[in-house]
Amino acid sequence: MIHVAVLGYGTVGSGVVEVIEKNKDMVNKKAGDELDVKYILDLRDFPGDPYEDKVVHDFDVIVNDPEVGIVCEVMGGVGAAYTFTKKALEAGKSVCTSNKELVAAHGPELIALAKANNCNYLFEASVGGGIPIIRPLNYSLTAERIEAITGILNGTTNYILSKMENEGADFESVLKKAQDKGYAERNPEADVEGHDACRKIAILSSLMLGQHVDSDKIYTEGITKITAKDFTFAKKLGMSIKLLAMSKALEEDKAVAMVSPCLIPADHPLKMVNGVFNAVFVRGNMLGDSMYYGRGAGKLPTASAVVSDVIDCARHMGKVIMCFWDAKEANLVSIDDTSRKFFVRMDNKGENLAKQLFGDIKPVRVEWIEDEFAFITPEMTEKEFATKYASLSDYAYGRIRVEE
Amino acid sequence: MIHVAVLGYGTVGSGVVEVIEKNKDMVNKKAGDELDVKYILDLRDFPGDPYEDKVVHDFDVIVNDPEVGIVCEVMGGVGAAYTFTKKALEAGKSVCTSNKELVAAHGPELIALAKANNCNYLFEASVGGGIPIIRPLNYSLTAERIEAITGILNGTTNYILSKMENEGADFESVLKKAQDKGYAERNPEADVEGHDACRKIAILSSLMLGQHVDSDKIYTEGITKITAKDFTFAKKLGMSIKLLAMSKALEEDKAVAMVSPCLIPADHPLKMVNGVFNAVFVRGNMLGDSMYYGRGAGKLPTASAVVSDVIDCARHMGKVIMCFWDAKEANLVSIDDTSRKFFVRMDNKGENLAKQLFGDIKPVRVEWIEDEFAFITPEMTEKEFATKYASLSDYAYGRIRVEE
Repeated sequence: MIHVAVLGYGTVGSGVVEVIEKNKDMVNKKAGDELDVKYILDLRDFPGDPYEDKVVHDFDVIVNDPEVGIVCEVMGGVGAAYTFTKKALEAGKSVCTSNKELVAAHGPELIALAKANNCNYLFEASVGGGIPIIRPLNYSLTAERIEAITGILNGTTNYILSKMENEGADFESVLKKAQDKGYAERNPEADVEGHDACRKIAILSSLMLGQHVDSDKIYTEGITKITAKDFTFAKKLGMSIKLLAMSKALEEDKAVAMVSPCLIPADHPLKMVNGVFNAVFVRGNMLGDSMYYGRGAGKLPTASAVVSDVIDCARHMGKVIMCFWDAKEANLVSIDDTSRKFFVRMDNKGENLAKQLFGDIKPVRVEWIEDEFAFITPEMTEKEFATKYASLSDYAYGRIRVEE
Repeated sequence: MIHVAVLGYGTVGSGVVEVIEKNKDMVNKKAGDELDVKYILDLRDFPGDPYEDKVVHDFDVIVNDPEVGIVCEVMGGVGAAYTFTKKALEAGKSVCTSNKELVAAHGPELIALAKANNCNYLFEASVGGGIPIIRPLNYSLTAERIEAITGILNGTTNYILSKMENEGADFESVLKKAQDKGYAERNPEADVEGHDACRKIAILSSLMLGQHVDSDKIYTEGITKITAKDFTFAKKLGMSIKLLAMSKALEEDKAVAMVSPCLIPADHPLKMVNGVFNAVFVRGNMLGDSMYYGRGAGKLPTASAVVSDVIDCARHMGKVIMCFWDAKEANLVSIDDTSRKFFVRMDNKGENLAKQLFGDIKPVRVEWIEDEFAFITPEMTEKEFATKYASLSDYAYGRIRVEE
């Protein structure tokens, strides 16, 4: 029997207990041993809960119990979660987590600490709860030189953008409805400003490169400025708008990463990723494109991912599972010199100026939006575009990157 | 250094050598040791080939060389490939294969033989060359009770159906063009009759159930009867037509599987899977839906999958990697009692009869196809539909299953 402790009895924590219980036969068969939830750490008590007798308030009970082999850290945050994870690993207990913030901030240190203590730090649930993506990157695409990762990595913003597209509604009104339904947080900044997607692409980029990508150094732009009109013109162009998290391996061991809303063509496979679903596109030098799709979050999908890590740890007690993520910082370059096309929406009065600046553009108009037009620029660097767009500022209503 | 032998120097075999050579740094890092292709078994000689000195014609050279740790069987067929695989495993050499025919026919026996000899029989490349799907099923979705798998598993038929849809062309003319371009075999039966997809869903179903699914017992229908008119009416209904390979776990340890063309809604994620791309949809009881997408075949994608298995074997020399696929035969039930909707295309003259048989149907018509209409039946069992459809036979032009 392998004893498990769950840190945090919130949504994901209770999901972990539920998955281990409900799929007991399958889980134990795959783990090769019986899994038992011995402790649940939470500040609260849960009178009447079927697991109330397992609830403890003191982490030392867990870390000092030699029977505990695996710890699920599903508390979130980088304070106590960080301290507890370190202590657990130092005690030789494997840790499985859904905490993307902690993984993005301290991944390489915790992986190294696990290795030094002959145990494992696994984090399948930290990116795309219901999408197995960490394990495919680590174990499946091993014969590949991964060249690029492009993902829709945040369920809240994808839900908002899908609603805006389908209902012709503006950002603020959709956000409000999403908050009322519980699909968006009361303080939605981490989602709508792209920070959540940024942490996740930092984790995926680190695994792609084998070196640490600092999420603070990733250019990040959210969806708060996207309007119903943007969707109207995008549709006219046969395109959709998604919040993409992207990273590319460049020559000479460099890389570039960003989070930004982007226009994508209607026949792009990511176009189909709607609502709370997420997806990750991976380009390898031999395999070409592959894509992984599933629920981005949610209690049971995320819990299932945590438990799949628990099973992996159970099968590898005392053995270290391969994970290449060095502490050495990856050489992230500025996005300034990267090239792409841009979508611009602007006042009719600026059409001549736009043509002077961007050359042979094709203005697109929508009948019921009289004063405006939109166009897509030729491919140019971010720097060049920024300069030209600034010159248009008297007439411009907005610009969005284009990803083809 | 770990010595590798490649059986068969055809498309995939030369790809395996190319991937190991081109991605040498990455491959050796992930393998934790240097991989060396020591032998290439082929009946032919390859004068001038950079690897000509590695070519041998006698398998005994390979099986009797204690230095060879891993064998890649990329010959195909169930004759010599079966014999060589058994001999290699009996000699304690792990075998990695792209041979879906052999895996579908003798998977459990070869997995058990590998286990008995402390080595591994891996087959990531046998289903969806460029889609990591075997490893996610075996290692990622471990906390799940997998309820259903639905895939587009054959590139040739998907290419043909995509072309028929986009160009309004008929099956025969698209098949001929595909053959001229080398996308379809001169003898296309294994693809267009669904046998290839059938073997692949047999493998995936076996892994889903942990028991052996005999591909001969899977109801299999190909795409040869699909017409341009079917696509015209399907489009009018907002639907597409794909060759789906499907299996479902039922209660009381039963299961049902089939390969059949199906109408799917335009917003189904599998709708986006066009041309030579393939995809596999997996439904778990906790995770809900997840999807895996990539190139279904091709030299380098398939070779990359084989090499990812080689790396896994290299990391597990002398250790057995988990795979649950018992020799015990799964309890596959007939499709007769399963229920779904059906698309029917028929002559206007039979409209009243169709309404008598199927109730409140909504006939759909296309302006330039004067004498015909199409409709979708209510949900009913296969058996009930077959009886009713037979009564329509004087007027019916075709029927296709509907998968929503």
